[in-house]
Amino acid sequence: MTWWLACTRLLRRSCACACSGESMHEFTMLERIYALNPQLPASVVLPPGDDMAMVSCNQSGEILVAADSAIEGRHTPMGCDPYLIGRKAVLRNLSDVAAMGNARPIAIVACATLPASIDSARAWRLFEGLRETAALWNAPLVGGDTAMLSSNVLHAPIMVSVTILAVKQVLSHAVITRAGACIGDGVYVTGTIGGAWDAATGLGRHLDFTPRIEAAHALCAALNTRLHAMIDVSDGLGRDLGHIARASHCDLEIDLARVPVSVGVSPLEAIAHGEDYELAFTAIGEVPTSIAGVAVTRIGTVVAGNGRVMMRDGPASFDASRMGYEHASPTNDDPQARAKS
Amino acid sequence: MTWWLACTRLLRRSCACACSGESMHEFTMLERIYALNPQLPASVVLPPGDDMAMVSCNQSGEILVAADSAIEGRHTPMGCDPYLIGRKAVLRNLSDVAAMGNARPIAIVACATLPASIDSARAWRLFEGLRETAALWNAPLVGGDTAMLSSNVLHAPIMVSVTILAVKQVLSHAVITRAGACIGDGVYVTGTIGGAWDAATGLGRHLDFTPRIEAAHALCAALNTRLHAMIDVSDGLGRDLGHIARASHCDLEIDLARVPVSVGVSPLEAIAHGEDYELAFTAIGEVPTSIAGVAVTRIGTVVAGNGRVMMRDGPASFDASRMGYEHASPTNDDPQARAKS
Repeated sequence: MTWWLACTRLLRRSCACACSGESMHEFTMLERIYALNPQLPASVVLPPGDDMAMVSCNQSGEILVAADSAIEGRHTPMGCDPYLIGRKAVLRNLSDVAAMGNARPIAIVACATLPASIDSARAWRLFEGLRETAALWNAPLVGGDTAMLSSNVLHAPIMVSVTILAVKQVLSHAVITRAGACIGDGVYVTGTIGGAWDAATGLGRHLDFTPRIEAAHALCAALNTRLHAMIDVSDGLGRDLGHIARASHCDLEIDLARVPVSVGVSPLEAIAHGEDYELAFTAIGEVPTSIAGVAVTRIGTVVAGNGRVMMRDGPASFDASRMGYEHASPTNDDPQARAKS
Repeated sequence: MTWWLACTRLLRRSCACACSGESMHEFTMLERIYALNPQLPASVVLPPGDDMAMVSCNQSGEILVAADSAIEGRHTPMGCDPYLIGRKAVLRNLSDVAAMGNARPIAIVACATLPASIDSARAWRLFEGLRETAALWNAPLVGGDTAMLSSNVLHAPIMVSVTILAVKQVLSHAVITRAGACIGDGVYVTGTIGGAWDAATGLGRHLDFTPRIEAAHALCAALNTRLHAMIDVSDGLGRDLGHIARASHCDLEIDLARVPVSVGVSPLEAIAHGEDYELAFTAIGEVPTSIAGVAVTRIGTVVAGNGRVMMRDGPASFDASRMGYEHASPTNDDPQARAKS
């Protein structure tokens, strides 16, 4: 998940995010935010721009932190069991922990904003979705805050923001960022890509996936310093590989035919869908084809360049580094149209 | 600020939080949540129920964490400069750090949820309110997430949730919780109480206060182990003293005439208003009348009991432990009416 601004994915059945006037544009905002990174104090070991930030505690240790939201009608169908909203909010954050490779979660806190009309039973289901998922992944829910919206906010969804804290899994080793890809690395993904949510119902794998924390730890153990860069695939494979390419100041050459797509999805759709919550990474040398029970597929190579994802589709080739879900854009409701543009 | 459920304060000019059907009731929810605390793993050093939670990092250190939201039209006037919303969200969290006494902030993350119609300029003002306030207090903004609401959500406010991380200020000392009050302690407050927000405009001190971090550190240094329990006054002095009384299994005898009230506010109003963001604490022995430039006033004594705040008002006396802002209640729009009931 992109760190500032990781905006919500629209379910296809819901309408576009219709910005009026001067619209918010993700890249403009992100560039302005990242431009301020040099002003951060030295205690900020990893500034905004990766899956998690890392801050020195001044106690011979560092803490990793990330935050992400889940909104009814955006990340889950409107009117669904609030348990699903709570669970997905936690799972999305756990996926960010996985993306750091050498990290394990230690706790979450959650801020829920609720419609005025909600009753105790639904509020409790949200709480239980948060609490049970967090406990299952050893990231206990240790606190939070609940706010009720005014009753004059019409069609108000249930919204929950989760912050996750993590520490290094192996204290003496580094975490894996997006910035470490080296020319000559292979480019890999875990699992299958695409089709995580059903266009008609809003349901699908995106509501109950397995954050790849175990696979990430196994990759770190198996590859050690040969594992160079990693991200979780949340915004669309094209866009997320683009984050690695830009952060690492290189190009990625990807063979679309090699991308392991989910059943019933075309490769072109798959790379723009997002919400896969798989890992994409670059590594040098031998990489196993399966790790911790999850398939690992080589889809390309890191080459010299400056931020492009050159996607080979038969005889054609195109830059896929912006393909996927564009946050805060007025034209972000049709990933397929973007994929074809 | 109450930890789970610290619901939003209604500006008086806005309507009540109108729950339909089975309404959410703060104490029922909180009791259910706190009842689950014994299930938390041993790594959770301070579970939900205090101003911040504390979690062991397994790195010879602990991390403190709290989360709180600010919502346009609730915590700030609707249509105000989004800078105020961002600033207040950070200040509220800093006040929770102050309440732990021996704690200093190290970083914040923020999740913003924005109306579909927002433009870049207003989104940037929110970001700057967060960033500048965080930087000023040595709690750099290290990341976050932005979500756009669907355009079918009418009257959507700007909402931002902030999570703050802190560590102990003096590593070898404990933090101050709500649970340490001892019979015979004096009960004290810093600054003045009441009148933090203007009923007509929604403006006032609550939009730009000084979190009492410096005063808290000075109190810890001056009183050391004589400082027994502390909370920030956010929900109303009566209610917040009630948190200390219940957590410490004692009663507090308060003399209403001693409460240092703000100009133009009656003592009875003042103890129910909230949003003062001053400190209330109990301590034994000599306590200075001013600390770090802030007045300190003794208002009462800790006595044997089980959670009451016995407020002496001339010849009369009443339990003020529930007086203040009740979160998630359908009748929470008129603190003055509650104060008189």
